[in-house]
Amino acid sequence: MKTALSVMGQRTAPPPISWLMKTALSRPKLISLAAGFTDNATLPVGISRTLLNEILRSPKTGQPALQYGTTAGEEKLRQLTAAHLQRLDGGHDRAHSPERVIITGGSQQLLYMTLEALCDEGDVVLVEDPTYFVFLSILQSRNLKAHGVKLERDGLDLAHLESVLERLKKTGELRRVKALYLVTYFQNPTGATTPLAKKRAALKLLKKYERAAGHPIYLLEDAAYRELHFDHGADVPTALTLPGAQARVIYAGTYSKPFATGVRVGFGILPEPLYTAVLRIKGNHDFGTANLLQHLLARALESGAYDRQVAKARKNYARKAAVMKTALGKYFPASVEIWEAGGGLYFWARLPKGVSAGVNSRIFQAALKSDVLYVPGELCYAEDSWRRRPANELRLSFGNASVADIRLGLARLGAVLKRLV
Amino acid sequence: MKTALSVMGQRTAPPPISWLMKTALSRPKLISLAAGFTDNATLPVGISRTLLNEILRSPKTGQPALQYGTTAGEEKLRQLTAAHLQRLDGGHDRAHSPERVIITGGSQQLLYMTLEALCDEGDVVLVEDPTYFVFLSILQSRNLKAHGVKLERDGLDLAHLESVLERLKKTGELRRVKALYLVTYFQNPTGATTPLAKKRAALKLLKKYERAAGHPIYLLEDAAYRELHFDHGADVPTALTLPGAQARVIYAGTYSKPFATGVRVGFGILPEPLYTAVLRIKGNHDFGTANLLQHLLARALESGAYDRQVAKARKNYARKAAVMKTALGKYFPASVEIWEAGGGLYFWARLPKGVSAGVNSRIFQAALKSDVLYVPGELCYAEDSWRRRPANELRLSFGNASVADIRLGLARLGAVLKRLV
Repeated sequence: MKTALSVMGQRTAPPPISWLMKTALSRPKLISLAAGFTDNATLPVGISRTLLNEILRSPKTGQPALQYGTTAGEEKLRQLTAAHLQRLDGGHDRAHSPERVIITGGSQQLLYMTLEALCDEGDVVLVEDPTYFVFLSILQSRNLKAHGVKLERDGLDLAHLESVLERLKKTGELRRVKALYLVTYFQNPTGATTPLAKKRAALKLLKKYERAAGHPIYLLEDAAYRELHFDHGADVPTALTLPGAQARVIYAGTYSKPFATGVRVGFGILPEPLYTAVLRIKGNHDFGTANLLQHLLARALESGAYDRQVAKARKNYARKAAVMKTALGKYFPASVEIWEAGGGLYFWARLPKGVSAGVNSRIFQAALKSDVLYVPGELCYAEDSWRRRPANELRLSFGNASVADIRLGLARLGAVLKRLV
Repeated sequence: MKTALSVMGQRTAPPPISWLMKTALSRPKLISLAAGFTDNATLPVGISRTLLNEILRSPKTGQPALQYGTTAGEEKLRQLTAAHLQRLDGGHDRAHSPERVIITGGSQQLLYMTLEALCDEGDVVLVEDPTYFVFLSILQSRNLKAHGVKLERDGLDLAHLESVLERLKKTGELRRVKALYLVTYFQNPTGATTPLAKKRAALKLLKKYERAAGHPIYLLEDAAYRELHFDHGADVPTALTLPGAQARVIYAGTYSKPFATGVRVGFGILPEPLYTAVLRIKGNHDFGTANLLQHLLARALESGAYDRQVAKARKNYARKAAVMKTALGKYFPASVEIWEAGGGLYFWARLPKGVSAGVNSRIFQAALKSDVLYVPGELCYAEDSWRRRPANELRLSFGNASVADIRLGLARLGAVLKRLV
């Protein structure tokens, strides 16, 4: 008898992360610099307790938090979200409207539903090379194609973006291109941030190729790490602030990373007709994100507790990033190129060309034997027939590991690299 | 320029419930007997406060609750869920194993992902006539076909199920049939409960037709209202207890309805290869339900607070159902057939044949003008070319309306019916 599974059910591959997690669990002494977990020590335990106590102190505020809400999300949280983004974008109010906000189960759910609303099987999404690997898992599962656009330390390579679009135009594939996906702040996995000028130029380029595509091409801006910067002056306005953004920019944000990853609340800002389509799809997924979490976040934002928590998290990550930087300088061979993080959770390390740090490499296996785990950079590259996947890179997270473990882990890894590079 | 939306993005229709909600909001004096909301007054405000305080009292228990968990869900909650179901099923342990449990964002998310893993466009799902309308919305969105199986006051019409399967075999469509979807306890919308003998017979029938189908046909048992019974003696074991269930029964359960709808935690028990496929898909949706909610439920289950809360909710709903029963007897014309609820949140009212209570009917409009809202039964019938959708039925919810509003609402509705039936 055949399987009853759908083609998608059969096709969907296990996420690379689950394999990494399992590896970590099987070696209790392993130091993981792989997971994108946030730091346990700075999680807002006391703050959450206080806020939840306030919410649940009386039936008047407690009952609405424990009842169903609406599919789009709590009105108040949507207003606070729009206001919060306006403030981050320096008062700019173009495209920041509560009516365009949808609250989701982490920004991951927003990414998933956006691809459902936008892409048929075989459609093409342009992604950074490398990019967020769970986004690539969605593409794999839904049989979407990706083409990679080179990423530089200061964000997208615009000339390469143009050449990719031109090539797609020539091959006729442009008609299948629906979006360019950019992780614009302290990118996962490289830590790179895309400046506003590059977002503007990218948006213009997409617009230019729309005629040949025959339909809108969206800029999907994933700002998951935006608030985890180490230097407030470094904040870059979102693509939402650009001319034409109201019709073409999809913004994916989250409160989970900056506040607490156990409180999965993300959000999207979408142009029509995408907003309505995603809202309907959300109705079928779960008809609304858990209200209790939304009330918690709304109260955190309104009371200022959110800002205080984020400031605390930033300081902590900045300290850990500094530890990682020092340890990398001390333990890694000079031939390894390091992309230093200005925020977020990751450093990016690039070995000399031709040296593999991939899943099956001697380096990865030796690192495991030395009880240190990293994310092989190759997992962050889309399947793209136009180029080979580089395997000479490593994602190193300082998110969850302790300062001592960061030092010890990098000492172990450095020893491996000195031996094998 | 064409739209960039996917075929699914364009196809997905607005949920009927959103239209009903909007209608409700536009008439502030409206009494809604439509929404499937639970009762505000019995929501566990104090219990949740106490439990969350315990969780967040110390970093040791607070930090894990505010951190990412695993995609399948917290180990402890999965164990408690398996044990809880075993207990409900009278100690029967066949098919109740934590390894087969996945925790989801309400049972709705489980239904959605199960259909993703199981059905390609054009595949067929058999449903009760009538059935849960948000399930029908998923089918509509994903371009799946449904065929309705007659529902009697004591559950599925088995002879009709067999004739539907036989007809599908003859038309060659059986190869596209993937599952039979049953809401087995206090069904939404009719309140009907399917006895174990009927579940057993249905499972046997599906098995019998598998050979012609060429693949497994699953029984998808949605037990969302199971715990909201008014008489403990009435509890019926799940299909999971039947021989062969381990390979063919998918069980969708939830803690949201019995505990708190603002705490969206549902779960599924699935056979392989479905379990693995759904788990991978969940990885792409959100890689795990919010941990804080899972820790809250685990503590509620473990401490006995969950059982106490459910007992309280049952008592309250039983009282409100009794009020509804009395009011229906007092205000409704005798020609209206009433299906009395033995649990759950709904009564089902059937007008004489040929009388419409549908969305565009004089009755629905007159009810609105009298400021009372119900769910037209026709919304709960699948699109099915083999029969016309009956329009002479009404779903009446006693979940969220106050006792006074139930009486007043039914008095208003009764007056309309006496005038127009």
